[in-house]
Amino acid sequence: MRDSTPAIHLRDIGSFHVGGRLQQLSGLPAVSVTLAQGGPSRSVDRNGTLVTGQMYVQRYLQVEPRHPLPVLLWHGGGMTGANWESTPDGRPGWLMHLLRSGFDVYVADAMERGRASWSPWPEVYESAPLFRTLEEGWAMFRMGLPEGFSVTEGLRVPHPGQQFPIDAFDRFAAQWVPRWVGHEAATLAAYEQLIRQVGRCIVIGHSQGGGFALQAARRWPEQIHAVVALEPSGAPSHAVSAEASAHASQHLVVWGDFIQQHPIWSTYRTAVDTYMRAISETGARVDFLDLPGLGIEGNSHFPMLDLNSELIAQRVVDWLKQVSSTAEQGQPYEVRA
Amino acid sequence: MRDSTPAIHLRDIGSFHVGGRLQQLSGLPAVSVTLAQGGPSRSVDRNGTLVTGQMYVQRYLQVEPRHPLPVLLWHGGGMTGANWESTPDGRPGWLMHLLRSGFDVYVADAMERGRASWSPWPEVYESAPLFRTLEEGWAMFRMGLPEGFSVTEGLRVPHPGQQFPIDAFDRFAAQWVPRWVGHEAATLAAYEQLIRQVGRCIVIGHSQGGGFALQAARRWPEQIHAVVALEPSGAPSHAVSAEASAHASQHLVVWGDFIQQHPIWSTYRTAVDTYMRAISETGARVDFLDLPGLGIEGNSHFPMLDLNSELIAQRVVDWLKQVSSTAEQGQPYEVRA
Repeated sequence: MRDSTPAIHLRDIGSFHVGGRLQQLSGLPAVSVTLAQGGPSRSVDRNGTLVTGQMYVQRYLQVEPRHPLPVLLWHGGGMTGANWESTPDGRPGWLMHLLRSGFDVYVADAMERGRASWSPWPEVYESAPLFRTLEEGWAMFRMGLPEGFSVTEGLRVPHPGQQFPIDAFDRFAAQWVPRWVGHEAATLAAYEQLIRQVGRCIVIGHSQGGGFALQAARRWPEQIHAVVALEPSGAPSHAVSAEASAHASQHLVVWGDFIQQHPIWSTYRTAVDTYMRAISETGARVDFLDLPGLGIEGNSHFPMLDLNSELIAQRVVDWLKQVSSTAEQGQPYEVRA
Repeated sequence: MRDSTPAIHLRDIGSFHVGGRLQQLSGLPAVSVTLAQGGPSRSVDRNGTLVTGQMYVQRYLQVEPRHPLPVLLWHGGGMTGANWESTPDGRPGWLMHLLRSGFDVYVADAMERGRASWSPWPEVYESAPLFRTLEEGWAMFRMGLPEGFSVTEGLRVPHPGQQFPIDAFDRFAAQWVPRWVGHEAATLAAYEQLIRQVGRCIVIGHSQGGGFALQAARRWPEQIHAVVALEPSGAPSHAVSAEASAHASQHLVVWGDFIQQHPIWSTYRTAVDTYMRAISETGARVDFLDLPGLGIEGNSHFPMLDLNSELIAQRVVDWLKQVSSTAEQGQPYEVRA
């Protein structure tokens, strides 16, 4: 099982929750349940206090980091930090690439997802969550056309040249989590707490997390030295782009393939590219890694999980090294309670 | 920020999901939502296929493990693997202690919790989940008596000599996740898949996870060399204890303090201790770490998070080293699809 890839030397692996608040529930009827094997049943009072709005963050700190700023990894909608750990077919994820490249890394599970926990509705959240089906994910993540997927018929026909490890698509779906609509502001508030706690940093965000990363860079450019938006599904509205000034974050936007075959992605991309052009015109550095345009074809919506994920990770790391030469290490400051 | 504790040298950090199955939903009405910032609204078809019953596992593999068998960490009810990572007041968790002690470590998020994801009800699960309030956790986790806790009055009066870092109790509650009743068999099935994939191992389980660990040791003693049940909230029924024979797992049970002040814990403990005596009589090795009996006073239901967590970790590691001398490294075998 030994391989020749370099080992990583860590002084700390740990985690913490940031953000959130206490919320009290009252007026709910009690329920009677048996929770322990062979134990007695007991009455559970659902009234009382819950924590809501918090975010989970796992940190990996190097013995000798080779870069002045840590990287924060922000997953997309209906996902968790597991997206960055291993590919569904068992290859090392971008977490390992970044650790082997010498960065300290912080992996977030955004509010309501994964180890961040979530809250009941309608008592706390306004509505029920959405569960992404394999059918929806197949098309939305640009694995192939909708008619190329059928569980009952055992059909998995990907786009020609698809880089996603299609045999592991069903296994990938095991890591999808429910998501809610209308929680963007609360999620961004938790990300703000994270940035305050970590200090000056680099953010790599994917899909919805790429949109959050662009928002965060617009709001707190003094904290975010550089932002990598990997297939961002949204961007700030143009009206505020004038805020992106001489001290703006440096931006890299990565796009995969098959966008024209999926009209919703053409729409998303147009909105993002319009925003990127607008802030570029104010003087912010904006670079694009348009993979098909560079002759790197076949990438899905998940370039960090595709078969050429290591190649793309290396391109991103090369860009980070280039823009990190101007970085100064920030001092963490206290989280507001 | 540097400290003098030894660094850890890892060849791999990664994760995977095990267990679970595809389930198809039909007959649900579509909903219209806007999921991407600034994007158009779109109709979401909730019908289709979901993965359900899977478990998430994160693995940390040493460059040079100093023990032949890996340790599997199984959290308790309403918790996730975050329990093992850091204490709520920011000290290193048992994950770091075990890594520094030279073990390969696998941290699970059991079915329905954390990064394992969860499924909708009543479409897949039979019932709604339970959310543990701070008030319930305060008493259930033996922080203090119920009347010593009040959010509205700002009251946090712990048991005298309490080892849990009480100032971090509210922050600890940020990592609690919802739980369902009646999922024990499905959860144990996912743990079986994990054990099949990892091969011969040591299991450390806490609370509900301690009960699962005792169940697993009874069912698959040839796979589980040793089991540490940390404050187990349940045990197998006695009737099957005859199965614990000469090739049984070796058992260590750890109990904290304040059990007599919390009648439900007296009940749970009596059931567990009765089972342990029964399997001991069949010849299985059963050891107890009764902390107050050893003069180590004040531990809550979470010895791995208490202020003396490192001391208790060291006692457990010492026991593991003692019983590991008879271990042989197992060969992983294929997971059944």
